[in-house]
Amino acid sequence: MREKPRHEVQRVRQRAHYDEPTVHAVLDAGWLAHVAFAGAGQQPFVIPMLYVREERSLLLHGSIASRLMRTLGDGIDACVCATLVDGLVLARSHFHHSVNYRSVVAFGRARPVGDGDGKAAALARFVDAMIPGRAGESRPADRNELAATALLRFDIADASAKIRSGGPKDDPADAGLPIWSGVVPMALRCGEPLVADDATPGLAVPASVRTLAG
Amino acid sequence: MREKPRHEVQRVRQRAHYDEPTVHAVLDAGWLAHVAFAGAGQQPFVIPMLYVREERSLLLHGSIASRLMRTLGDGIDACVCATLVDGLVLARSHFHHSVNYRSVVAFGRARPVGDGDGKAAALARFVDAMIPGRAGESRPADRNELAATALLRFDIADASAKIRSGGPKDDPADAGLPIWSGVVPMALRCGEPLVADDATPGLAVPASVRTLAG
Repeated sequence: MREKPRHEVQRVRQRAHYDEPTVHAVLDAGWLAHVAFAGAGQQPFVIPMLYVREERSLLLHGSIASRLMRTLGDGIDACVCATLVDGLVLARSHFHHSVNYRSVVAFGRARPVGDGDGKAAALARFVDAMIPGRAGESRPADRNELAATALLRFDIADASAKIRSGGPKDDPADAGLPIWSGVVPMALRCGEPLVADDATPGLAVPASVRTLAG
Repeated sequence: MREKPRHEVQRVRQRAHYDEPTVHAVLDAGWLAHVAFAGAGQQPFVIPMLYVREERSLLLHGSIASRLMRTLGDGIDACVCATLVDGLVLARSHFHHSVNYRSVVAFGRARPVGDGDGKAAALARFVDAMIPGRAGESRPADRNELAATALLRFDIADASAKIRSGGPKDDPADAGLPIWSGVVPMALRCGEPLVADDATPGLAVPASVRTLAG
């Protein structure tokens, strides 16, 4: 029997997408991923990490003192999953309750990015990924901060996206039940900005923050 | 040198918590986890899964046809991470930008839960974990639906929580910079419910949905 590719979606295949524009669009809509890897002789670990996509790779960053960053940067096989929750799907039956979501599972290996190689610009992109426009409003990393930051480039070798959208798929036999069915949209939303206790006095809320909260 | 326990937090240790009430509180605040495991001779996989906590275990469910559920249910070492995003932390410098979050990383092994063993009640809990009160409003799983659902119990052997909260920790040298600093709270929030295209006519939005959207 043919060995299936590692990124082939096995369940609910109509939700699967392998084309790069779809995979990239899901990745670009988020900034938090869960990264799994296993060091030599170790069991798998999974940790939350911030990321930004650059072409066919994901940039990941952390402290140079991080044991996990060193293990991951050794170029071992890793798997990265980014998931966005879009809604709760309420069916008439427990069984058909579901979640609307977009996720990407990407397989590949990570390698360190050196100081000379656009590291400051890459770190600025992490700021803008979370808060568009914020990098230009705040102080870029200085030499010491750059040296304290490990930057990894995870090259995506294979990836798949899985997307569920739309309403519940109820069992036809349940059609007449007096049970409400529908979708409750969900998203990670921003609330009102809170100024820092030690903030520089007299500053207006900047454009980037107003845009987020809007 | 002493081998460190697998769940010992290495970086920013003041954010680490090992006590069960804290770990459980973070787990109980969410319902989406990322589950990592590696089948024999395979590289690590990580996939998003719904969960509910029951005592010192996490219940996970999926299709009985799922290859990944079978692999995971074989009792191999697995790692489960649940992450909740609470806010964006805006410092004066790129370097001190951060995210407020609560996460748990749990290590353990999963085993199948049999049909006789409270499976219907467990599946109802998945519905209520996402939409409190919804299980009582909708039709429980019937015999066929129960048979089509694989339920796993992941026994938590070791776990740690990591929590960041509060404002930015700016470099004292940046105190005078005319750059706004603070926190933008974030949460996964619900929007206005959308009734299904094939909904039973004439039903009011139920209490569970009104509570979510409120």
